[in-house]
Amino acid sequence: MSAPVYNRVALIGLGLIASSMFWAIKRGGLAGEVTGFARSEATRETARRIGLCDRVYDSAAEAVADADLVVLCVPVGAMGAVAKEIAPHLKTGATVTDVGSVKRDVIDAVGPYLSDGVHFVPAHPLAGTEHSGPESGFAELFDNRWCLLVPVEGSDAGAVAQLRALWEGMGANVDEMDADHHDLVLAVTSHTPHLIAYTMVGVADDLRRVTDSEVIKYSAAGFRDFTRIAASDPTMWRDVFLTNKDATLEILGRFTEELFALQRAIRTGDGAHLHEYFTRTREIRRGIIEAGQDTAAPNFGREAPKG
Amino acid sequence: MSAPVYNRVALIGLGLIASSMFWAIKRGGLAGEVTGFARSEATRETARRIGLCDRVYDSAAEAVADADLVVLCVPVGAMGAVAKEIAPHLKTGATVTDVGSVKRDVIDAVGPYLSDGVHFVPAHPLAGTEHSGPESGFAELFDNRWCLLVPVEGSDAGAVAQLRALWEGMGANVDEMDADHHDLVLAVTSHTPHLIAYTMVGVADDLRRVTDSEVIKYSAAGFRDFTRIAASDPTMWRDVFLTNKDATLEILGRFTEELFALQRAIRTGDGAHLHEYFTRTREIRRGIIEAGQDTAAPNFGREAPKG
Repeated sequence: MSAPVYNRVALIGLGLIASSMFWAIKRGGLAGEVTGFARSEATRETARRIGLCDRVYDSAAEAVADADLVVLCVPVGAMGAVAKEIAPHLKTGATVTDVGSVKRDVIDAVGPYLSDGVHFVPAHPLAGTEHSGPESGFAELFDNRWCLLVPVEGSDAGAVAQLRALWEGMGANVDEMDADHHDLVLAVTSHTPHLIAYTMVGVADDLRRVTDSEVIKYSAAGFRDFTRIAASDPTMWRDVFLTNKDATLEILGRFTEELFALQRAIRTGDGAHLHEYFTRTREIRRGIIEAGQDTAAPNFGREAPKG
Repeated sequence: MSAPVYNRVALIGLGLIASSMFWAIKRGGLAGEVTGFARSEATRETARRIGLCDRVYDSAAEAVADADLVVLCVPVGAMGAVAKEIAPHLKTGATVTDVGSVKRDVIDAVGPYLSDGVHFVPAHPLAGTEHSGPESGFAELFDNRWCLLVPVEGSDAGAVAQLRALWEGMGANVDEMDADHHDLVLAVTSHTPHLIAYTMVGVADDLRRVTDSEVIKYSAAGFRDFTRIAASDPTMWRDVFLTNKDATLEILGRFTEELFALQRAIRTGDGAHLHEYFTRTREIRRGIIEAGQDTAAPNFGREAPKG
């Protein structure tokens, strides 16, 4: 166990990411102490009961007092209000970061509230599950996953390096990226796929000639993966789409364009077009396996593949 | 180990499903012997090398001779040609079945070639992985998965019961369903989700401003599940879409309609609509977990969740 990276870390919002950060920080001995705050009293009570955070406060102001690092772990749409609330209570020299899935909007919402004496280093860990809430976290969530740091203009290099050390200590691989580019990359790899999965699950639910129980019973092949994605936290995802509107709409436009081309190939019986397309997409999967972001184990359609 | 269900089973086509059937039949002692045939000489050689099938023949005619059950495990588009080829060599009283993902088209393509002395009981095991070929099979593939039997008009009740016993012996749960309803249910739960996943992966590949390496590196959240689906066998899926055209196009129409409504909500900033929609889709996921088709373990975004 190495020396702590920060003396005091404050987690604002105690859901999946914050609770996983707490257990990962404890596992690595990365902070002298970790304080926490959640808006909901029920969440605070749960956190106290399961030992999530060394101290859980009833106000964000108390939680951030004397903190060297403040991590905003609330939905993207709530970041600005939280920043406004905590700003007067931040210690000079403290670093404020966040874990939001959209970066330009968070920077615009949070930045104006922070004084010059505070460092602002936005971040986004690319890790999650379909579960949410204070009891859903676990120390291994970030192991071998990416965390993207998105420094703003004038971000202090020392503050960025310190935050990088924290994320690396929690098991993540760290990259830096510009905010607008981040939002476009995530629109492709995460936001649009989520919207599509939500839509497909909604279609299945609407279709009266196919009963819900049939959809559920026979969901093994393909649809099941969509339902897992579509089970993610509704508030978080509402905010993602509202705040990464331009990039999501651009990718959606390209998606429907390509979908219509495939739809036309089906209608006209153009098997060569379909086969060529499906062969090309198979290659991307191989790239992902080679990049170490997944294994070749056949883990859809079943829980326990042959070793 | 119970008594064999069939004396001799012939597997025509030796890919993921056939090879898994072979290992599952051996595990359960469900057949006296299993013969096999594949059109590709390389596949036949691989099968002989790894002990897939008790005997691998160089012609389909030899493989089906004296077989009590013949299982067509070729892409849907090849079923008719294979049926034509084997029909003169089938034993009187034999049962012919298949494992195709589409049923109406297979019935129309295969049925006319079979004489009255042969039973025809189409089937579709709802199990698979993104891998293909003779080495991709494993005995556990069908455990606790559904296999749908789709008897045709006049299917012999005894022949249906015997095939049911085989699938149950291989670990599957068996249901019976009408061919047209099967094709609609699968268009919702499998075929359209696959097309959408293929499309999204294609979009990512096309987008030159987001390099492939970025898409691949940062694919953990959402997109990765799509790439796994989109890595499935191109020939099999081409045939699925060409032969289940009407149902797929109908579901695609509904899908784009709903997608446009969500797209409009994003454009107009209608957060309430998005939140309500995402909350509803979350319920379907809960239904799937309660129906025992999946676990609540958070297994997307990572390989080894906390137990």
